[in-house]
Amino acid sequence: MRQTSNIKIEVNEVGTRDGLQIEPTFIPTEDKVALVNLLSRLGYSKIEVTSFTSAQAIPALRDAEAVMKQIDRVPHVTYTALVPNARGAERAIESRVDEFNLVMSVSETHNLTNLRMTREQSALQLEDVLAIGKSNGTPSNVSLSCVFGCPMEGEVALDEVLRRVERFAHAGAIGITLCDTTGMAYPNQVELICRTALERFPGLDFTAHFHDTRGMGLANTLAAIEAGVRYFDMSLGGLGGCPYAPGASGNVATEDVVHMLECMGYRTGIDLEGVLHAAGILEGLVGHELPGQVFRAGPRLKRHAVPADFEEIRARALARQATGVAK
Amino acid sequence: MRQTSNIKIEVNEVGTRDGLQIEPTFIPTEDKVALVNLLSRLGYSKIEVTSFTSAQAIPALRDAEAVMKQIDRVPHVTYTALVPNARGAERAIESRVDEFNLVMSVSETHNLTNLRMTREQSALQLEDVLAIGKSNGTPSNVSLSCVFGCPMEGEVALDEVLRRVERFAHAGAIGITLCDTTGMAYPNQVELICRTALERFPGLDFTAHFHDTRGMGLANTLAAIEAGVRYFDMSLGGLGGCPYAPGASGNVATEDVVHMLECMGYRTGIDLEGVLHAAGILEGLVGHELPGQVFRAGPRLKRHAVPADFEEIRARALARQATGVAK
Repeated sequence: MRQTSNIKIEVNEVGTRDGLQIEPTFIPTEDKVALVNLLSRLGYSKIEVTSFTSAQAIPALRDAEAVMKQIDRVPHVTYTALVPNARGAERAIESRVDEFNLVMSVSETHNLTNLRMTREQSALQLEDVLAIGKSNGTPSNVSLSCVFGCPMEGEVALDEVLRRVERFAHAGAIGITLCDTTGMAYPNQVELICRTALERFPGLDFTAHFHDTRGMGLANTLAAIEAGVRYFDMSLGGLGGCPYAPGASGNVATEDVVHMLECMGYRTGIDLEGVLHAAGILEGLVGHELPGQVFRAGPRLKRHAVPADFEEIRARALARQATGVAK
Repeated sequence: MRQTSNIKIEVNEVGTRDGLQIEPTFIPTEDKVALVNLLSRLGYSKIEVTSFTSAQAIPALRDAEAVMKQIDRVPHVTYTALVPNARGAERAIESRVDEFNLVMSVSETHNLTNLRMTREQSALQLEDVLAIGKSNGTPSNVSLSCVFGCPMEGEVALDEVLRRVERFAHAGAIGITLCDTTGMAYPNQVELICRTALERFPGLDFTAHFHDTRGMGLANTLAAIEAGVRYFDMSLGGLGGCPYAPGASGNVATEDVVHMLECMGYRTGIDLEGVLHAAGILEGLVGHELPGQVFRAGPRLKRHAVPADFEEIRARALARQATGVAK
């Protein structure tokens, strides 16, 4: 049996960035700020608050500066933001972001499709961002998309992933997020890739980012923990879909993962009831149903009332027993 | 890393009984027969075809005799049916059912609520069924509900589960299904309960039956395999909800579990493409969306086309590189 109680899992909430960025409705700045302030007090290690991309590219997050300026800074919470380029880095520094999150794909086809650049162009651009961060004392994490497969290319070679990690390690990244961008990861693959990455780069903090597109999000989380990963991206309510599987689930839901981990005895430090409350607020803000399961079903020990006629059911059953009808 | 390739997982399709039983629409007998005939050729070890309950109790399956009579009997597939009592046992024998599936709950409150009998009444009634089966040469499996928790009572003691298993083992059951009826199981609990049951009763075939109500269905499946379980109930398309969590997922979807296991290298013998095709037929029959994920997203290596303007995207990116715009 696996040991769980000595293991602390650090949770990075990405719903406010990765979830909200594709919402068609603009969530008012004050609502975003109130949500981040609520989340800040629920035990997260990190919150990816927003994105310093251009307003044209991601209009849903066009208020990045205003949100960063107005949120409370709760001690021991790292407030990160997506930073795509040098201009974004300058904006993020002005907004006193604690850490940059840089994104590129390990798949050439996915990188071109998603970021409109070759991988080499992305890598050079992100090395600029890393350098700006370093000169300002702001650490950078790099999120690598499609680590467990590309929806257009298929399998991705592990060596290709490791080469990207190595390059960003040399450029000064403090952490790498291994992203299952379209839900192609499966448990023993996750264990192999994560174990290899952790062994090869002991100085980096590795985060895992899973999608539940094919139902394996929680199984993959456990496989990554088994391999030694301790940092995880999760999205409130499971917000954030997958463009390659319309209708299917996207990001694993924070409350689903935390619920499982806490049941199992892992320590997350997260206030699950608070997260469920926050998911309810988020559902109201986005105006559509969230895919998270625990949000609808409740925690496993949530008690349900017996039927109103339970005593009559029991009395009838016992009466049958007395007269021998049911033997 | 876990070894998977030498492990054969036997799949019991329960969608035709556990799934269809709560559907409000009556599926015509000929459609049920055609579906079972299709499934029979997809590699299942067992198919739970129908239920010999009263037509009043489960009108959706009131054609049990007709379905059993008309289906093809494919060699090496065990055709089972739910048998609630002596009358059902006689009907099932007349219909040449290969194996009886008996059901009761390990929770007194759940058993009373669901079956309108005390556990003792259910146990006595099921012992009658077992005796009828034995005298006819028909083996019986007993499905125990709420093994991993009761939605009304909360935690269920493992000793209580083991006592029920022991009693049915003595009464001649050849197998026991450990059912997570309302999705309360979590992985290390599953591993503990399954391991204990398998060690204590080496002569019984144990099947695990999971629901995905709180997102843990696939993680629990892997935990049960880790504990030595090799037989699993699964439901086509994930049909079959949970009355205690309206809107949440119910039974784990056959195609989601098989997809994961095959990705991992376990041998299921199941034709996944065939199962996905069958899920499409089932969705048409029930007339509403099925909760299974792989049915919507497709297998992980299903390739997606690049965007129509991909070559232009690439050409523009390379042109920027040539002029040094993106450095």
